[in-house]
Order: sequence, then C-alpha cells, then structure tokens
Amino acid sequence: MTFTERLRQIQQTCNSLLCIGLDPVLDKIPSHLQKTGDPIVEFNKHIIESTSDIVCAYKFNLAFYEVMGPAGIEALEDSLDLVPQDILTIGDGKRNDIGNSAERYAEMLFEGFEFDAATVNPYMGTDSVEPFIKYPGKGAFILALTSNPGAKDFQKLKIGDRYLYEKVVQRAKKWNTGNNIGLVVGATQSRELAGIRKLASDMPILLPGIGAQGGDLKKSIEHGCTRKKDLLLINVGRSIIYANNVRDTALEVHAMINTYRNV
Amino acid sequence: MTFTERLRQIQQTCNSLLCIGLDPVLDKIPSHLQKTGDPIVEFNKHIIESTSDIVCAYKFNLAFYEVMGPAGIEALEDSLDLVPQDILTIGDGKRNDIGNSAERYAEMLFEGFEFDAATVNPYMGTDSVEPFIKYPGKGAFILALTSNPGAKDFQKLKIGDRYLYEKVVQRAKKWNTGNNIGLVVGATQSRELAGIRKLASDMPILLPGIGAQGGDLKKSIEHGCTRKKDLLLINVGRSIIYANNVRDTALEVHAMINTYRNV
Repeated sequence: MTFTERLRQIQQTCNSLLCIGLDPVLDKIPSHLQKTGDPIVEFNKHIIESTSDIVCAYKFNLAFYEVMGPAGIEALEDSLDLVPQDILTIGDGKRNDIGNSAERYAEMLFEGFEFDAATVNPYMGTDSVEPFIKYPGKGAFILALTSNPGAKDFQKLKIGDRYLYEKVVQRAKKWNTGNNIGLVVGATQSRELAGIRKLASDMPILLPGIGAQGGDLKKSIEHGCTRKKDLLLINVGRSIIYANNVRDTALEVHAMINTYRNV
Repeated sequence: MTFTERLRQIQQTCNSLLCIGLDPVLDKIPSHLQKTGDPIVEFNKHIIESTSDIVCAYKFNLAFYEVMGPAGIEALEDSLDLVPQDILTIGDGKRNDIGNSAERYAEMLFEGFEFDAATVNPYMGTDSVEPFIKYPGKGAFILALTSNPGAKDFQKLKIGDRYLYEKVVQRAKKWNTGNNIGLVVGATQSRELAGIRKLASDMPILLPGIGAQGGDLKKSIEHGCTRKKDLLLINVGRSIIYANNVRDTALEVHAMINTYRNV
C-alpha cells in the first residue's frame, strides 16, 4: 500500500484529520510528571493515551529530542513504541543533504526510528530528496510554504509568473511517481493554501501552525479540503499538549475539524 | 572575538585552509579498527592525530552519527573531545525550522555538542536562521549554492535578474551584523563561486565537494580567494579519511591548497 493510501485509510477508519505534535519541553511538563524517572516519555504516554482514538497521526519534531542528547534519542524511541500500530508517526526533522548524506537521514528516520513519514526541506533539489521517497509505504512531506514569518523571504519570491513555493509544489508532483509525497503548508497561509490545493489536488497536505502560531482552522479546511477526498493532515501541538485537560481539548479540536469538513 | 575573526586567526596560525570531513561509515573503516570497542571514535582519533597540525577545522556531518542512534550521538561527543582546543569544529546538520524549534537545534549544536559553527538551510527565512546567529563567537554557514546536481532545481532559478542562491547571499549579508555568518558553496560550482565572492567579499565560504564529488581545487581557490584576505574553508572528506595513508594524503592536499593560494 502506498503512503497516501495508508493515510487515506487511517483517516477514514478513525474519522479524523487530527495529528498531534509531540514536542515536549521539560520545564513546561506538569510538575508531577517531572518527578518521574522519564518525564518526557511519561508526558508523551499521557498525551497518547488521552488521544489515540481521535487522531490519525502523531508528529515528533526531532529538535525537541535531539537537544537532550543521547537520552533524548532514547526518549523518542520509547515514545514511538507507545503509539498504537495503526496510527501514523511523522518524523519532523526537515532534513536535506546531498544524496550520500540524505541516505543516512532516510535510514535513521525510516529504518532506525521506523517513522511512517518524514518532513523534508527541498532547497537542495532532486537528488537530496530521492533517498526519502524510495521507501515503499513511507511518506515524505516536502516543505512548500511554511507557517513562520520568514516564509516570505525566499518561498514567496517570484520566478516568472510563479512563486518559489509553487515551483516546489510542481517539482514535488513530478517526484510523486510512488504516490508517497505530501506537502507542508502552514495554516497561517490559508489564502495561498487554496492555490496549492489546486496545483496538487491529489497530494496530502500536512498543515502545521494551528493554535500557538495563530493559523485559522476554518479557513484552512475550507481551502485545503475543497473536495471530500482531499487529504489534509492538521497538526496541533502546544495548544493540546499543554492544555489543562488534554483529552477535552483534543476532543474539541477534533469536533471542530469535523464540523468544518462537513460544511 | 567574532567567529570570522576566530577563523582568520586559526587559518593564519596553522597556515591552512583545510577542513577535514569526519563522516565515517562503519563498513568502510579499516578492519583492524572495526575490532575495537568503539570503531567510529578510534577511526576519528586516528584521522585527528594524523592531521591536526595541518587543518584549521573538522566538519562532522550529523547524518553519519544520527543514523547509529544514541550510540552514534555518544560517538560524536567523544570524537569532539579529541579535537585540539584551537581547531574549529563544524556541525554539518543543515538544520532549519521555525524559530521555536530552530532554537532547540542551535542549543543542541552550540551548547550541547559545543560546535564552533553549524551549517544552516535558509529555505524558511530570517526567523528560522536567527537562533543560529545569536551565539557570540559561533558561526553559521548558510547553504547558498550546494555541490550536488539538484542545486540547479531551485537554487539556480532566476528571480528577476538574480538567481535564488544570489538572493540567499544578499540576505545572508544583511543577517551578518555580528560578523559570524558564512556561506556554503559547492566546489563543483567554481564558475558561480567567483560571482558569490564578489557579492560577499568579506564572508567566509565553506567549500565542500572536492575529491569524491569532483570539485576543482585549483579553480575553487582562484575564484574563492581573489584577495589574500579572503576567507575560504576547503572541506575534504572521503578522499582523505579513507586514503591508504591518511597523513600523506592530507599533507598533499594541504600543500596543493597552499601552492594554489600563493600563485
């Protein structure tokens, strides 16, 4: 089964487009968990147990684990073991390098951690992306238009009649012969999302930037899911994982997403 | 002292522009070292001991360590401890993320591993680069024009009368108020290197792609060091670290570099 088919299947089965970003920072973790032997893993365990019936994926931003050294890598491995088998895991590392090095990153992500998908920075072009897309069943989400202010600096530069991010989308479509490539589009860019959805109608879009970053959920769904079959993966991180009641907040977000989808 | 000043000082002291890329692959390591308890660290130790009097820096590509899991991170830490104090270390991770996440990467690289410099992918713009440039004395090498074939896919797209990589160089110059930013330019791009050197006359350029990737050393120095004071950091990896005689090969490369510099 291709990654895109896997994503469609899990989204249908669990009736959810929600992906939760598990990017824990030690000093933001509830104090009773900080006293345990492995606070990061305990924290993730709590989030996963509270939400695994209403999400289709968990996204792990590698920066938050790598900053803790070897212990952080172990915490990431242990956290991944807690994710139920049918739910997808995304290794959000935004890696990119020449082919020879990119192969190591792909091996780390897909064979080491056994992530189902990874985020990939496109700046270095085709041969730097290829190692990530040659794993059958695994997905590569290519950064197209990101959620941060700096997205305008290069991604929105005009090349002829197209923006750079549209050139990336066009190229990603060409790369997508294995039906395993998606795009990262920030939820803060909901106007541009409509254009990207038109350009790449059959590709999954991973949408970060809801919540702490101020992205508009309703507009994002309106523009990213124009047809019932459009694949959108909505990542919510800080506003769920640090909520007073994780399950209630996740349920609320899940319900909101499904309300907007069905309008 | 700014990073650029530090680089100038060490290059003068050791009379060398040579940076060796310590990117070991287990099955390419000599068999007698494979039998030791910590083959990667033993291998790096051998390279460092054979070359530390003729290099100004060692570059560690994180992909090669991360692929080995927590043990790889420990091997990287142990290898860094073997580098003499006055020689610069570069964490080649090509990281880039939104500010909040990029801060973790910068912390990992500059406080965790204590690298002197890091490579940074510019695709996500200003706020994604800022966390890497706010460390006094540490350097950030921004990917401008890379050595791989895919460099043409996006980096060589034309924006008005400039290529994307030139836009990146112009932006990097603006970011460089702390005199701690450099550029990565592949040695396979020696023609374009001349133009980049003109655009960014006072910035250090890290030049990978010599040796296994086919870059031209003579032309690279001709175009990258047009004035005596131009800062060029020439990375050589596989062709030195896997040489039959590491020291002799490194000496040869070092001598060639200095011959071409002094023409």
